[in-house]
Amino acid sequence: MSGAARQASLEPPREAFDTPRRLMAEGLGTALLLAVVIGSGIMGERLAGGNDAIALLGNTLATGAALVVLITIFGPLSGAHFNPAVTLAFLLRRELSLATALAYVAAQVAGAVIGVFVAHAMFAEPILQVSTKLRDGPAQAFSEFIATFGLLVTIFGALRFRPDVTPVAVGLYITAAYWFTASTSFANPAVTVARSLSDTFAGIAPASAPAFIAMQLLAAAAAAGFGGWLFSRAELSGVR
Amino acid sequence: MSGAARQASLEPPREAFDTPRRLMAEGLGTALLLAVVIGSGIMGERLAGGNDAIALLGNTLATGAALVVLITIFGPLSGAHFNPAVTLAFLLRRELSLATALAYVAAQVAGAVIGVFVAHAMFAEPILQVSTKLRDGPAQAFSEFIATFGLLVTIFGALRFRPDVTPVAVGLYITAAYWFTASTSFANPAVTVARSLSDTFAGIAPASAPAFIAMQLLAAAAAAGFGGWLFSRAELSGVR
Amino acid sequence: MSGAARQASLEPPREAFDTPRRLMAEGLGTALLLAVVIGSGIMGERLAGGNDAIALLGNTLATGAALVVLITIFGPLSGAHFNPAVTLAFLLRRELSLATALAYVAAQVAGAVIGVFVAHAMFAEPILQVSTKLRDGPAQAFSEFIATFGLLVTIFGALRFRPDVTPVAVGLYITAAYWFTASTSFANPAVTVARSLSDTFAGIAPASAPAFIAMQLLAAAAAAGFGGWLFSRAELSGVR
Amino acid sequence: MSGAARQASLEPPREAFDTPRRLMAEGLGTALLLAVVIGSGIMGERLAGGNDAIALLGNTLATGAALVVLITIFGPLSGAHFNPAVTLAFLLRRELSLATALAYVAAQVAGAVIGVFVAHAMFAEPILQVSTKLRDGPAQAFSEFIATFGLLVTIFGALRFRPDVTPVAVGLYITAAYWFTASTSFANPAVTVARSLSDTFAGIAPASAPAFIAMQLLAAAAAAGFGGWLFSRAELSGVR
Repeated sequence: MSGAARQASLEPPREAFDTPRRLMAEGLGTALLLAVVIGSGIMGERLAGGNDAIALLGNTLATGAALVVLITIFGPLSGAHFNPAVTLAFLLRRELSLATALAYVAAQVAGAVIGVFVAHAMFAEPILQVSTKLRDGPAQAFSEFIATFGLLVTIFGALRFRPDVTPVAVGLYITAAYWFTASTSFANPAVTVARSLSDTFAGIAPASAPAFIAMQLLAAAAAAGFGGWLFSRAELSGVR
Repeated sequence: MSGAARQASLEPPREAFDTPRRLMAEGLGTALLLAVVIGSGIMGERLAGGNDAIALLGNTLATGAALVVLITIFGPLSGAHFNPAVTLAFLLRRELSLATALAYVAAQVAGAVIGVFVAHAMFAEPILQVSTKLRDGPAQAFSEFIATFGLLVTIFGALRFRPDVTPVAVGLYITAAYWFTASTSFANPAVTVARSLSDTFAGIAPASAPAFIAMQLLAAAAAAGFGGWLFSRAELSGVR
Repeated sequence: MSGAARQASLEPPREAFDTPRRLMAEGLGTALLLAVVIGSGIMGERLAGGNDAIALLGNTLATGAALVVLITIFGPLSGAHFNPAVTLAFLLRRELSLATALAYVAAQVAGAVIGVFVAHAMFAEPILQVSTKLRDGPAQAFSEFIATFGLLVTIFGALRFRPDVTPVAVGLYITAAYWFTASTSFANPAVTVARSLSDTFAGIAPASAPAFIAMQLLAAAAAAGFGGWLFSRAELSGVR
Repeated sequence: MSGAARQASLEPPREAFDTPRRLMAEGLGTALLLAVVIGSGIMGERLAGGNDAIALLGNTLATGAALVVLITIFGPLSGAHFNPAVTLAFLLRRELSLATALAYVAAQVAGAVIGVFVAHAMFAEPILQVSTKLRDGPAQAFSEFIATFGLLVTIFGALRFRPDVTPVAVGLYITAAYWFTASTSFANPAVTVARSLSDTFAGIAPASAPAFIAMQLLAAAAAAGFGGWLFSRAELSGVR
């Protein structure tokens, strides 16, 4: 079991869930996350009468709320990464084996794509689409670095000091990040791949995806190192 | 007492509430839920100047907030199902007797209809109405299957790992589901019946209701089986 | 100390705060509550470009958030009633003496009026105003009955089962009630009096106030009786 | 370690973090806070089609959510002041040495300015800007006094009665304060300085900054005295 999952639960001794259930948690969780991201984007765009800020409010509300729920119910099973950048960071921290990490990423990507298809089916859209929404340039790439770095620092800090509120911390972080980064914070390679398959509000053109993914992985590696320093154990104070 | 109610409280030994109070909790809770769903829909539609996304934001905020409150205060009494699909799932899991389940459903449907009437009275609308809002087709039906399946997985997962946050998990799930499903997530047969009696923002034409209810019950049964596997006990890890 | 305050804290034995601090908590808390209600209403109306739903979203967000904060920080001091209807209900439940109840109500009304003046000063409005916004008729009165009854049931239920989440429960209840009642849920006689002194978004004409206050007190009395039955102790179950 | 940080953690004995990490927490936390404040303001203004209430909703949602996250993950390290007015209040309460206070303020101001630059870079804005948005007059100044006084009372009250919910209390307070004060609640001298360097939605003209900062420091001093009385220990009640 990953260190993230171990730390996230407060009941010792921990249950050791079998691999099928852990991969189901990663895959289903990522699928539901994408269904929410894409679905609420479509709903927002259809109803908002052309005002993208109103569409983004609905998209944000739904995504933030869903993340809290999904991490709460799947975290004890698999750690609730739903994100290859998160899995990479835990791999770099040696809290996950390479084999597990690869299986997680496969489940995440497969789940993410299925989630996009589910959203399209719910909204009577063509199942197979390719996004035409370009998100290029250094400002977008820098946004993804900041978005992912902040996400990882949030996860490391919450697991370190308040593991029970990790689901809420991540949900609120993404709520903020949809608005404070110019890219609306993808911060997740599986999400980026899957969103390239939707020509709707939340889509990203395939040509823009590689730079996003590169910055996300770079930020995850940087955050793993930085967080290792910032959140490492300190000496105990004599003061109680 | 239902298993859900038993698990939801953290103070052993549990209080055993008498049947009248349990049915009052189911009936009053469902009535207040419908008053919120219908009332906030009317308020949103009246004030939003034709922008349905803004109306849906108000409708979402009110429904999500109310669910957290209602499950918090009525959960320890009755389990706070407010929903025949939830009651069916607990019946299939043998955590509720058939007699209790039937009484719960009767209280839920009666409460839901009364709640619609209360909302109409508060907004000076005709008390008795029939919705003319068609919500038909396979995409709508599929949306209800996903919405209800997700709701039940949320409930099972929260009761399994974090029973104290079940009210928040359900409130946030519905907050997301109002936006990520094309049907705005009824996910509840009693709610569906009652909303057919309101020709306002949140209504559904009676002709569209049976397909919604069928998908909701189907999803509840599927989720009961799936959740039984995913969330069953695992062996304990030696690691503390 | 009131029973409400006693129950709301989880640390036995409780601190007994002196009367000046308890009245300060009631007065300052109600003043800040009104500053938020009136101030955010003005802000919403000024910025929303005539769309009242958007103004109400801002008004709701601010009021709900402030209630959670104010009840969290003043609850352990005074019980954080901020509301003569709440004080009446605790008086009827014999958890408060008549002398204390009267002092609480005086502090609440004085604080509420000062809060309105503070909001006017912050927004460079004339300090002294009288509202011209009529809120008359049986639907408005019925809305206030439902709004206040629901508020009291929320308070009784939360104090009974989850006293630590009472601040969140009340904040979320009012968040919902701003949208699901036609009156936008005053549910508070001190708030009603004070809002009659503001000719802005959240105001109420003095001629409309007495019916609001009558329904609020009636609902508080009804909820005290009903809640006394619904939430009274049950026998303990043998099942742990 | 500051008293705030000490009280905020519930696990005795406390860890004593070294100065570099404490200053990093103050600097990085303030930088991220400003990136959120400025970034979400730009996003809101760009998307909202001229409706400032919608822009402010996005700005509010992002700022409130980010504050909860940042105080959760950095609070145990440094106390998560992010604000010279907060640091001043703890200095006046003798919970912080003068040397530490000065180092904190330096880290906060430096971090705040860097955060503004990061936001500008993410949104492809010129890095160096000077705001032209005048926020003058007694009503604005009075707003800042109320905003900061309320913030400090919130912090003192939360640390006194519910230290574990301090991050949520502060996030919700600022959520409310963006709407109920005419100045949209800067309430923070480092934030005020930094926002003078952004000619975007959340900016403030340098000429308007000194009055804001003066009122913020005055309010912090007043709140330190008032809170010292209101929240001081009371005698224990015999009633459990």
